[in-house]
Amino acid sequence: MTTYNRKKVSVIGGGFTGATTAFLLAQKELADVVLVDIPQADGPTKGKALDMLEASPVQGFDANITGTSDYAETAGSDIVIITAGIARKPGMSRDDLVQTNQKVMKAVTSEIVKYSPDCTIIVLTNPVDAMTYTVLKESDFPKNRVIGQSGVLDTARFRTFVAQELQVSVKDVTGFVLGGHGDDMVPLVRYSYAGGIPLETLIPKDRLDAIVERTRKGGGEIVQLLGNGSAYYAPAASLVEMAEAILKDQRRILPAIAYLEGEYGYRDLYLGVPTILGAGGIEKVIELDLTAEEKAGLDKSANAVRNVMSILA
Amino acid sequence: MTTYNRKKVSVIGGGFTGATTAFLLAQKELADVVLVDIPQADGPTKGKALDMLEASPVQGFDANITGTSDYAETAGSDIVIITAGIARKPGMSRDDLVQTNQKVMKAVTSEIVKYSPDCTIIVLTNPVDAMTYTVLKESDFPKNRVIGQSGVLDTARFRTFVAQELQVSVKDVTGFVLGGHGDDMVPLVRYSYAGGIPLETLIPKDRLDAIVERTRKGGGEIVQLLGNGSAYYAPAASLVEMAEAILKDQRRILPAIAYLEGEYGYRDLYLGVPTILGAGGIEKVIELDLTAEEKAGLDKSANAVRNVMSILA
Amino acid sequence: MTTYNRKKVSVIGGGFTGATTAFLLAQKELADVVLVDIPQADGPTKGKALDMLEASPVQGFDANITGTSDYAETAGSDIVIITAGIARKPGMSRDDLVQTNQKVMKAVTSEIVKYSPDCTIIVLTNPVDAMTYTVLKESDFPKNRVIGQSGVLDTARFRTFVAQELQVSVKDVTGFVLGGHGDDMVPLVRYSYAGGIPLETLIPKDRLDAIVERTRKGGGEIVQLLGNGSAYYAPAASLVEMAEAILKDQRRILPAIAYLEGEYGYRDLYLGVPTILGAGGIEKVIELDLTAEEKAGLDKSANAVRNVMSILA
Amino acid sequence: MTTYNRKKVSVIGGGFTGATTAFLLAQKELADVVLVDIPQADGPTKGKALDMLEASPVQGFDANITGTSDYAETAGSDIVIITAGIARKPGMSRDDLVQTNQKVMKAVTSEIVKYSPDCTIIVLTNPVDAMTYTVLKESDFPKNRVIGQSGVLDTARFRTFVAQELQVSVKDVTGFVLGGHGDDMVPLVRYSYAGGIPLETLIPKDRLDAIVERTRKGGGEIVQLLGNGSAYYAPAASLVEMAEAILKDQRRILPAIAYLEGEYGYRDLYLGVPTILGAGGIEKVIELDLTAEEKAGLDKSANAVRNVMSILA
Repeated sequence: MTTYNRKKVSVIGGGFTGATTAFLLAQKELADVVLVDIPQADGPTKGKALDMLEASPVQGFDANITGTSDYAETAGSDIVIITAGIARKPGMSRDDLVQTNQKVMKAVTSEIVKYSPDCTIIVLTNPVDAMTYTVLKESDFPKNRVIGQSGVLDTARFRTFVAQELQVSVKDVTGFVLGGHGDDMVPLVRYSYAGGIPLETLIPKDRLDAIVERTRKGGGEIVQLLGNGSAYYAPAASLVEMAEAILKDQRRILPAIAYLEGEYGYRDLYLGVPTILGAGGIEKVIELDLTAEEKAGLDKSANAVRNVMSILA
Repeated sequence: MTTYNRKKVSVIGGGFTGATTAFLLAQKELADVVLVDIPQADGPTKGKALDMLEASPVQGFDANITGTSDYAETAGSDIVIITAGIARKPGMSRDDLVQTNQKVMKAVTSEIVKYSPDCTIIVLTNPVDAMTYTVLKESDFPKNRVIGQSGVLDTARFRTFVAQELQVSVKDVTGFVLGGHGDDMVPLVRYSYAGGIPLETLIPKDRLDAIVERTRKGGGEIVQLLGNGSAYYAPAASLVEMAEAILKDQRRILPAIAYLEGEYGYRDLYLGVPTILGAGGIEKVIELDLTAEEKAGLDKSANAVRNVMSILA
Repeated sequence: MTTYNRKKVSVIGGGFTGATTAFLLAQKELADVVLVDIPQADGPTKGKALDMLEASPVQGFDANITGTSDYAETAGSDIVIITAGIARKPGMSRDDLVQTNQKVMKAVTSEIVKYSPDCTIIVLTNPVDAMTYTVLKESDFPKNRVIGQSGVLDTARFRTFVAQELQVSVKDVTGFVLGGHGDDMVPLVRYSYAGGIPLETLIPKDRLDAIVERTRKGGGEIVQLLGNGSAYYAPAASLVEMAEAILKDQRRILPAIAYLEGEYGYRDLYLGVPTILGAGGIEKVIELDLTAEEKAGLDKSANAVRNVMSILA
Repeated sequence: MTTYNRKKVSVIGGGFTGATTAFLLAQKELADVVLVDIPQADGPTKGKALDMLEASPVQGFDANITGTSDYAETAGSDIVIITAGIARKPGMSRDDLVQTNQKVMKAVTSEIVKYSPDCTIIVLTNPVDAMTYTVLKESDFPKNRVIGQSGVLDTARFRTFVAQELQVSVKDVTGFVLGGHGDDMVPLVRYSYAGGIPLETLIPKDRLDAIVERTRKGGGEIVQLLGNGSAYYAPAASLVEMAEAILKDQRRILPAIAYLEGEYGYRDLYLGVPTILGAGGIEKVIELDLTAEEKAGLDKSANAVRNVMSILA
């Protein structure tokens, strides 16, 4: 009698980011959530999922949360979020990192496609541009349904620092970035505001430069403070915002890592650009006129992505 | 010109439970939050707080989250939540656990009282009955302002298992426990319902017994699955519900570990009982008529608490 | 490229209840909402819808709200809520009321079925049992997809009065009713609790009787206070809770007016009973053992419904 | 034992806007709410308040809502919102409107000040600039604690129309206005964005002009559609956003009607400008460099306000 009509989101990688993403999705009742990790982590993954589920009566949300190492349980997902992969460790070459995570992406994607051929995939794993590219190729999905995350997180950090600087609500601060994640980020400060007022008129240039620089190094700042591990609250929140836009067909204008076929002058490349996210995944890449300086920054960012891609096996 | 009137909650202990508690408090905009850990963990505590804060623009909440090892930053807290302390490790005697955590409670309480003499304290640290007692004595606070957590978590687990059994929403399932945490829990199944219907009429006795037993071992189930560590999502959610009831003066009827002075026939003892939680902390202990069996269970629970208390230095 | 996947709910009747229902649905981002009224009210209906939509940027919700007198705009609704019909006016006979609203139900249902053959219908129009019956027959829908509202509202009022009496949070008070709406309501006080504790042990009998009586007359109390018009906030909230349970497949245990085919000993009759509401509409009628007194009350309520049904043309 | 620490907001005027404002405040658990109207409307005001309160168990909020005609019940309010007054009717001269509402403001303010000498007052009554001025003078409050609403509503409408035009989420569209309400509004389109991108680059000039014009006439559009009455959902939501910013000390950057003492070159005048709203009410007026055209528009708007003020008795 029942037509089962809940949404379903699977999160690949049951570490801190994956688990927090699962929790935030369930908490918003956006979907039932399946948290997936490797067989060796089956117990911990199930433990985290159960612990989250046991929070549901108190937090007042209705959503199943399942922990598993069996991809069969992801079957029919509307969205799959990939957080799996390793972080660069001391002594590890960048090539090793890229090739290891590339293997992870390939293995993971093959399972995703097998069980959820109609899903949209959002990738967080670093280096995110190259990893998203790998997932696109491996999945053979249309480009609009394979998306990378970086700009939502980068602008979240930027907005936090600006709100602190001005002592105003984060709700009224916006930020804008193009290009890659972190060091390769191209901030468009002229498109960043507090209460609609350009930040350049509210914050002295040196302070604003410092905020931009702090944003670039935002991931590293957390890594350094934690000593062991990296950020997961803000990355998880960013993934959830992108997933929500798609699940609810909100047509949000959000920065995302999109596959470019001529936009901004690039081809066959994943790069951070403003997009419209809705039920169709990336429904549109928004093109902006850039200053020469901005274009140069974006070129540099694109080259950095190509460099990483050249390492792909 | 500004009258600063945000609420302030400090969370002592920056581990998973403490950090998750801090995040959930901020997310609900219940208060500005200060997360405190020992000086050796100052960096990681600051890192977690900053990561959470960077999630705020995306999740859309306005609340400061500060990580620190300096209790001066907790000054003027409305509520202080204690999650600090060690977990029992293989080979550690119960006496060692109790006495170690007792020392932690004493040290922590002295700092809390120094900076927030008018706060209400909620204790999570195990063995929670004895630790709450320690905090009461050390703080010299009135009994209504020193509260232990266990029943909200125990009933949350019970409700989760019942909802799974009946395949209904957790929103419509309630549970009821008395006494200590975990093994010493006295479940009052006759006061537990789905949609207002007594569970005894909806679930066969053997299944219901199994659910009660699983609830008793609920913490252990998570520990065993995780392999390393213990539950933190549901415990954090439980702490936040208690804090919210107090901060918003909701006069919620929630199970809490309350100091008894004759209620249920006990004196000078902390034990899990139904209470009214509002701006005054525990504003009332609700007394129920118990069956002989229930009273026997509660006596056993009380004795277990007294046994632990006898270890206190 | 886009797979449009928002839910859609149409609300028939653009008066205060219908409009408030539309607003609360949109506010929760449960669905896009179409508010429908007769052609003569086309302007006001459009005006209300636009005003609500203009609140969306401030309240932060993403949902289309459309006002119309053209049923074509309701096409493909997941749920249709019927609030249309007249209220009994001074001098109007009950028969006139019943037959007038029966005509409204027939006209409305024919349009609903035409444009949304797979929807679930929730009826609020009074006398609600007979009107829901009319909609069932006119729609030729399966019984699980034609549902009447009364118990959620009746228990909401009961819970409010109990919370006031005990000075506790409404969140911890539950109520339970069977049978018809208002005067014919059969309250099951023994299934009503505060914090899980039976109300009979918390509130003196005379006070509890007064609360039950006030609940029975709850609609009339508002009518009398308003002088002109009737309640709409609580009725709208009740409709939205039922719709949410279905849209999110929550399997909530909620009282609803369900078509009985033998349950509780009645056949071919709509009566208020506890149900499980999920994606399948009424997925189950929960049968309870009743005391003789309760069964007598329910018989009386059933007879009252049959009396009204005998007036149906 | 209890330290009562809920916030309290009183709403003066129990019409649609006042009632909706009360409901939205309670729904967010921002405060206990007192809805006040004249003695002749005492019953309806109590009826609306009770109906809203009866929605609270279903909507899950804890807040008292009281309807009254006795200002004593407003005692100790943190915020008082004034929606009272008449609307201009056909045949009524503007002078009559201004002087009638001026009398209402004086009467109302005297009661507010008597019972809540430390509150912040937010005024909605039209003509809002002159009415806010009247309240300032009558209350003898510091200027930061007497605030008029218009810009939040005007930008909400603007944002709605832009989101429709671009078919994107309202969450990503911002607007910016200066000056008076409605016809005298000075839109700063260059400070209005979708996803941070200036609207001028996304929407053709003629379409954008049409949207600005529609925004100016936004209140009239609703009046015309409704036939009888005016907008109340979006106005209520706007009032609630301002109240929330103050109650939670959010330091939101919101347009508000502020008392100017030299800012933008005006003195002793209430005019719509960007402000920082926090616990101190208007904590700051933000001054912007204006183009000659914008300054001319603002001068015109200021003159219109002065013209209305000249009618004040």
